[in-house]
Amino acid sequence: MYALILAGGQGTRLWPRSRHHLPKQLLDLASPRTMLQETYDRLGPSVPADQVYVITNAACRDEVVRQLPAVPPYNVIVEPSGKNTAPAVGLGCLPIRRRDPEAMVAVLSADHIVQRPAEFRSVVAAAVEQAERGYLVTIGITPSRPETGYGYIELGAPLEHAAPHSAHRVARFTEKPDLERARQFLAGGRHLWNAGMFVWRVDRIFSALEQHLPALAESLDAIAVAQGTATEPAALDAAWAGVQAVSIDVGVMEKDDRVAVIPAEIGWSDVGTWASLAQVIEPDEDGNVVLGADHLHSGTTGSLIYGERRLIATIGLQDFVVVDTDDALLICPKDRSQDVKELVDRLRAENRTQYL
Amino acid sequence: MYALILAGGQGTRLWPRSRHHLPKQLLDLASPRTMLQETYDRLGPSVPADQVYVITNAACRDEVVRQLPAVPPYNVIVEPSGKNTAPAVGLGCLPIRRRDPEAMVAVLSADHIVQRPAEFRSVVAAAVEQAERGYLVTIGITPSRPETGYGYIELGAPLEHAAPHSAHRVARFTEKPDLERARQFLAGGRHLWNAGMFVWRVDRIFSALEQHLPALAESLDAIAVAQGTATEPAALDAAWAGVQAVSIDVGVMEKDDRVAVIPAEIGWSDVGTWASLAQVIEPDEDGNVVLGADHLHSGTTGSLIYGERRLIATIGLQDFVVVDTDDALLICPKDRSQDVKELVDRLRAENRTQYL
Repeated sequence: MYALILAGGQGTRLWPRSRHHLPKQLLDLASPRTMLQETYDRLGPSVPADQVYVITNAACRDEVVRQLPAVPPYNVIVEPSGKNTAPAVGLGCLPIRRRDPEAMVAVLSADHIVQRPAEFRSVVAAAVEQAERGYLVTIGITPSRPETGYGYIELGAPLEHAAPHSAHRVARFTEKPDLERARQFLAGGRHLWNAGMFVWRVDRIFSALEQHLPALAESLDAIAVAQGTATEPAALDAAWAGVQAVSIDVGVMEKDDRVAVIPAEIGWSDVGTWASLAQVIEPDEDGNVVLGADHLHSGTTGSLIYGERRLIATIGLQDFVVVDTDDALLICPKDRSQDVKELVDRLRAENRTQYL
Repeated sequence: MYALILAGGQGTRLWPRSRHHLPKQLLDLASPRTMLQETYDRLGPSVPADQVYVITNAACRDEVVRQLPAVPPYNVIVEPSGKNTAPAVGLGCLPIRRRDPEAMVAVLSADHIVQRPAEFRSVVAAAVEQAERGYLVTIGITPSRPETGYGYIELGAPLEHAAPHSAHRVARFTEKPDLERARQFLAGGRHLWNAGMFVWRVDRIFSALEQHLPALAESLDAIAVAQGTATEPAALDAAWAGVQAVSIDVGVMEKDDRVAVIPAEIGWSDVGTWASLAQVIEPDEDGNVVLGADHLHSGTTGSLIYGERRLIATIGLQDFVVVDTDDALLICPKDRSQDVKELVDRLRAENRTQYL
């Protein structure tokens, strides 16, 4: 069993804590371990450390190596630029294919929270069972609310499976729905959240890439030929420049005709925003989630207060997010925490790199 | 003409900017000059620098001297402890009486804003005219809103006066009214805000103290006898310990039968809270008052944003106060800015002196 951890995200909506050189997956937001470390820990003993691969960007590479001392540094792969998940998955699977063309691979995001790691491992085992039969397997999260921020997976025909987890063909992938449809999905009981966690044999994903994204497969082959030679860096840069950005969901999963899903209740969250981080942490008696901060308040409820050094005094905040870092402070209502991205985009447009 | 500036306030509700060692009157909140310096500047050339006296507490004494280099350091008087305004006025007037028993004195607070200083000087001149006739004169502010946070002065019979300012006997002092009464006061046109600015002859105020607060007058005499001798510090401490705390309004003005008021429109504010500071500063095009801060926002309106170093990013704040200092941060709705005092009281109760 191998694992490929995708750790190239920016975590923009968790600004000002998440920064270019230390994005969300490299932070200890919800536990003493960073999200990347939690992702690694979650794999358990069935994946030896030298069979764990991480793909990230150049800015984060050294920190990834530092945070995962058991993982060989050459297992940390740097993509020259962000091209969404399909190219990242392909590049990350190249060294696995080289070691073992029939390797089983779990592909995981470094910036998700899973509150029930034992259940997660049990689900992965069930996914392996289907992947051995040639399926591209995705792990689908049983939805708990009519979330409009995620894509959904519609359950198809059931597949033969061992207890305790069921397995289904995927009837359909659905992009982020509006609230009305999300409510219907929740009520109908046949839709799961698409969490971007996959299990497949490495030869199976490469044949799927050849079929559905042939240009990408060709670029990956050109990179593979050069790997381990003096021309590797130049070949990588040259091939990568021509690669089209596309997600593995859109580029492969939605097109392939042997895709399976394992429904899972593993306490998953993508922690996309400060509001969603607050959802996965037990609040205090006032209904606030206070992280690191020295918080003095009068009548503040339902809020996330993140701090480092300063005293944070609040009066009458209801359902707010306050994030206080050394050089930048964020204050916003929870229900607008998606809009943090807009502020970061403006900082980027104004080239205020010290805050990015 | 002499001036006595009362600079012993704590400015608690302007925390976390206002601190024990550097309270509101010693801060440059609304202009590049501090409020104490603005108060001094406002007096104009009719009060020579060596006829300006300041009364403050021990913690602030050196900073007062530093901020007013033209005022002789021995004109900065330290009260051993805060006893409200009547004892402070008496102690501050002692050296003036010694220099000139018939001196004319303007008593002013160091922590008020006056946006029209020329008009202020014109009003003071009108007050002097009445004080020369033996009145204790207060300057009453023409109200602009039904404010419940101030005391009011009811106009009595008109007094003979020179243009352009009218002068009246005071019919009545009224404590802070409820909103209904405040609205009646505003509509009736016969009530002014009690701003705590006074003009009188020094012999007149001492005879009023003897009449209305004889114990205080006796203590002040004991202090005066010792002044300039080796026993002065001990005499001051001993006499001061027995002094009862009382305001000059309650202790003298409300009791005296020759009290006059000059109605004034001088752009006055006591800047008691962050919300009232925001009222006297021109907002930017988004309706926000941004002081010192690097403010990046989306949809924030009607708010006061005070900062020093950090980037302050806000989303969707409406009518908020954000005050960001090196070691403490305050976030509260404008309409709860009175409640800052409660937080400071808790810090004091918990002996967290680093934040006081």
